[in-house]
Amino acid sequence: MHDLAVWHIPRPPYAYPLADERLNVRLRVAKDDLRRPTIEWSDRQAWTRPNEETPMRWFADDAQFRYWEATITPSEGRVRYLFRLEDSTGQAAPVYFGGWGLTRERPQGAWPDGYVHWPYIHRERFVTTPAWVRDAICYQIFPDRFARGNPPVAPDLAAGWTGQISHRSFWGGDLRGVIAHLDHVASVGANLIWFTPIFQATTNHKYDTTDYGRIDPHFGDDEVFNRLIAESRARGIRVILDGVFNHSGSQFAPWRDVLEHGMASPYWGWFDVTDEPADPKLRNYRTFAKAPHMPRLMTGNPEVQAYLFERASRWMRMGIAGWRLDVADEVDSSFWRAFRRDMRAINPEAYFVGEISYDAVRWLEGDQFDGVMNYPVLHAALRFVAPPENGGTTSAPLDASGFLDAVSQIRTWYPGWANTAALNALSTHDIPRFLTEMGGDVDRFLLGLTFMMTYEGIPMIYYGDEVGMEGGADPDNRRPMIWEPERQNHRLLEQVRALTRLRRERPALRGSGFRPIRLAKPSVAAYLRGVSGLEELPREGGSAEQGSVALVLLNTSKEPVTVEVSQRDLSQPEAFGAITWPASERVAYEPLTRKAHALTDTGLSVTLPALGSMVLTPNE
Amino acid sequence: MHDLAVWHIPRPPYAYPLADERLNVRLRVAKDDLRRPTIEWSDRQAWTRPNEETPMRWFADDAQFRYWEATITPSEGRVRYLFRLEDSTGQAAPVYFGGWGLTRERPQGAWPDGYVHWPYIHRERFVTTPAWVRDAICYQIFPDRFARGNPPVAPDLAAGWTGQISHRSFWGGDLRGVIAHLDHVASVGANLIWFTPIFQATTNHKYDTTDYGRIDPHFGDDEVFNRLIAESRARGIRVILDGVFNHSGSQFAPWRDVLEHGMASPYWGWFDVTDEPADPKLRNYRTFAKAPHMPRLMTGNPEVQAYLFERASRWMRMGIAGWRLDVADEVDSSFWRAFRRDMRAINPEAYFVGEISYDAVRWLEGDQFDGVMNYPVLHAALRFVAPPENGGTTSAPLDASGFLDAVSQIRTWYPGWANTAALNALSTHDIPRFLTEMGGDVDRFLLGLTFMMTYEGIPMIYYGDEVGMEGGADPDNRRPMIWEPERQNHRLLEQVRALTRLRRERPALRGSGFRPIRLAKPSVAAYLRGVSGLEELPREGGSAEQGSVALVLLNTSKEPVTVEVSQRDLSQPEAFGAITWPASERVAYEPLTRKAHALTDTGLSVTLPALGSMVLTPNE
Repeated sequence: MHDLAVWHIPRPPYAYPLADERLNVRLRVAKDDLRRPTIEWSDRQAWTRPNEETPMRWFADDAQFRYWEATITPSEGRVRYLFRLEDSTGQAAPVYFGGWGLTRERPQGAWPDGYVHWPYIHRERFVTTPAWVRDAICYQIFPDRFARGNPPVAPDLAAGWTGQISHRSFWGGDLRGVIAHLDHVASVGANLIWFTPIFQATTNHKYDTTDYGRIDPHFGDDEVFNRLIAESRARGIRVILDGVFNHSGSQFAPWRDVLEHGMASPYWGWFDVTDEPADPKLRNYRTFAKAPHMPRLMTGNPEVQAYLFERASRWMRMGIAGWRLDVADEVDSSFWRAFRRDMRAINPEAYFVGEISYDAVRWLEGDQFDGVMNYPVLHAALRFVAPPENGGTTSAPLDASGFLDAVSQIRTWYPGWANTAALNALSTHDIPRFLTEMGGDVDRFLLGLTFMMTYEGIPMIYYGDEVGMEGGADPDNRRPMIWEPERQNHRLLEQVRALTRLRRERPALRGSGFRPIRLAKPSVAAYLRGVSGLEELPREGGSAEQGSVALVLLNTSKEPVTVEVSQRDLSQPEAFGAITWPASERVAYEPLTRKAHALTDTGLSVTLPALGSMVLTPNE
Repeated sequence: MHDLAVWHIPRPPYAYPLADERLNVRLRVAKDDLRRPTIEWSDRQAWTRPNEETPMRWFADDAQFRYWEATITPSEGRVRYLFRLEDSTGQAAPVYFGGWGLTRERPQGAWPDGYVHWPYIHRERFVTTPAWVRDAICYQIFPDRFARGNPPVAPDLAAGWTGQISHRSFWGGDLRGVIAHLDHVASVGANLIWFTPIFQATTNHKYDTTDYGRIDPHFGDDEVFNRLIAESRARGIRVILDGVFNHSGSQFAPWRDVLEHGMASPYWGWFDVTDEPADPKLRNYRTFAKAPHMPRLMTGNPEVQAYLFERASRWMRMGIAGWRLDVADEVDSSFWRAFRRDMRAINPEAYFVGEISYDAVRWLEGDQFDGVMNYPVLHAALRFVAPPENGGTTSAPLDASGFLDAVSQIRTWYPGWANTAALNALSTHDIPRFLTEMGGDVDRFLLGLTFMMTYEGIPMIYYGDEVGMEGGADPDNRRPMIWEPERQNHRLLEQVRALTRLRRERPALRGSGFRPIRLAKPSVAAYLRGVSGLEELPREGGSAEQGSVALVLLNTSKEPVTVEVSQRDLSQPEAFGAITWPASERVAYEPLTRKAHALTDTGLSVTLPALGSMVLTPNE
């Protein structure tokens, strides 16, 4: 019994509203603590009535802690609560966790009470993440490197499609080129594209905006952009753009004005300049990182907000589905709250994903982002599946248990809906390509891919990953797309297509149920996935999908490994999570290979290939 | 060593910005954990440079935990950090706490790293609580019961000044009456008045607003109000009003319109009505508590915000110093952020205090309230000083150690600046009067008062407490003010004046330093108060006051008690808090009685009177 481990705060991720005045509540205890918690709750204005009682359900275990969860629906939206932890061995009296922390006595009910309060579940806080994100599969395009149109938009940039990548090289990719290859994007299984910036800028990556209201002339113009949106929509593909509002670029007109006129400029207050004159050589002004050509915007300035929102609205009205927000963590939350409100007024189903690479719950309270780029969970996958000699370059390698602990810990950082709306990427333009991290080993790449495609959140394919492109750190990870079939890795491409198809066809893989199974083999990670009945976002498929389940096994050993998954692991007591393998299903079916495995009374025994995976479902 | 107890999150109260890009950071460990923490931190963009290191200082102990604190000043406002905990016995390797929780290995520095991030200290988040609140002493007036003007504003209500209090009785107090007695308020030592609502309403308490733009005709009009502000100002007294924005009243014109026209009313969206027609008998609409005559306002509706802010602005422009905000916790934070912004645009030194009676850190992130009504800390005082047979009515009585633990725990709920700006009340119109809670025992009342007047935060006197008024729960706690000298308790009144004078004269009592001293006697609570050099709000007195200190002793025994305060307790090692009794001062002086006590090499030995207190300072 570890009293000091018990923890709850009435804030996300420990408490957060869903819709219809439901409140989701979590409690953390030590992992080996056997006490079973019950949440007692009541209307804050009904002091004399006895509390309602809701037993909590298991949510996750990480290396140190166990997390319990309950969903309560207080009347009139006002609730106070406390936790009662009972010793399952019956040997100790219950303990309580309330407004004063852990106590041996029951917290008092009279005012000022010893309860925790969620004083009102405001409609403004209901979850508004759109249902479509649960079913999204994303494809990231770095436009200068993806494809040139025929004819190219910028013939001067469009010489050969090969050569030496450098920080300054331009490759001449454009939006016409994208349109010409939308069938490829669709054939990979993606229904969402994230474009790195496409607004006018001076660099090839366009993160130094010159004009937020104009498509970069190297990429196209409004007419091409409108066509891109229409052609994408015709293929069931949504488009999100990269919003770079933390800073602008060296040629941004207001910044040029400040450079020229100093404090006399009407735009002086748009930037954070220490002393006049602003001087890129001295960098006597705040910038993104240490980059003089990326002057930081004063995003708290209402004029700056109005300016940026007006331009962003323009693209919303042209039909984009949302925004990936660059350096999202260095812009104040007040900006994002206003941004979401204004953009949602144009498209109520817009999706917002922030670039934040650590615990981002501050931005995931429902009024800023729907999700963040889930670098931590993919980094855990990298540490698990990379060759040991590579996996340790930035962190120690993880075995199956360490991997499942890390993934579980990250799940506990966020509300469930934010896990569903996270953007999961193996590679991006900011990190080495995953295949290169794998030392070029396609089997290891596919292990990572199988994890991503069977895990919760939007899986994302960085252009070219699907055909086996390699590349180290920036700029090497931005090589031009390989279009020649003879240079593409067809085994890999077919696997990508098979896995996206599997994800589309199996609701279990898009559900929010995740239950790690701890096996005796350190090289094999196993988990159940499913639609648990506790989904926090609406489902387009409706309730018919509830109860669907899949078992995923990933083997990082260079040898085949036989594992036994016990009956108990497949169907735990109700208390330990709602997803279980249906007891009546005695055959485990591999949709990817069409093989079938019989279950025995003790469970399932299967042999995984060397560096191989298995996805098993109870039905064909 | 209790690994599971170590805790930090990059949010208030564990991390919060001050001014000038300083960040205050706290770490929680088990109380008996001897490891000494160091925070290692660096610019988020300077990965290759070695970390800065700042040893942490002791902040507080509660019953279970010890809290450490450090203030860091990252360059360019961007910081990442981790905590290193070293075993002071030298027997164990250090452990680390970072972005992945507690680890045995040093968290990795390469991206994605194992650090905690405060990505940017935005100027919008700098502390803006005005310096004046540190020196404020508040007096609460319930206008219908304080004083009638001569002539009274509402002669029809102004019969006798005595009689039986009921929920519905009107006593005819008015603002002219207040003006006539401002000298009394000033003589008690107050420099701030909080008026319960004065806008037009139907009840005697006026929490059911009819017109937010009009002084209640029973109380006066704009002319009287302007004079009240001017006369108060002439005496150095600021005025804050009670803002009741959570709900309106039965006669509020927009509500009348909804009752009459249902969904056809332009105000339909201002209220939360389940089904047409709204019917007070059915209460088929959301209300404050269960009160049909207090229909809940949809404060998330921009029209409602604009309406209320316009009216609130009117009173700001007439010179009020801020707002006490009623049912602050049931109104969404987005409303308060906008409210603060709009009111501060009129008075940059406005003060905002929310009515929230439990851990309120969600509202104390710098963009909503400066402080909250500190019911929990005064409730702890009540449990300590009340007669045991009374103190247990709502909670078990506390001994000195339990009292100091409870106060310390509440301190850890908040940023330091919010502790300074809290509103501390022994009595209000919502709870029984403190003297009544004390069973009428003036000595016990004075113990509570001495605590409040020597503790951090704005002390508040509820009208009449200073002359010994009694009263149980509402409405009995709202009896008419006793003005006849022969019915006033002059010993009590003189003590109130002496204590407010002491607080004014001794900066130590207004500082943010608080160090409990644990004595062997369970009836005696002791603590050092002082200006620590770690003040989070600017001081009007400047740095000259730094280092000032006072020792407070409170004895709840019915017998005199002799206590020994050891030299070590008076001057702990530097690491354990910056406030210490200066070693050179060998005499402890009682400013209230002008007695002096010699310190010996072992410390101080003093005898406290039965149910008595002592405030000691190193200088006269």
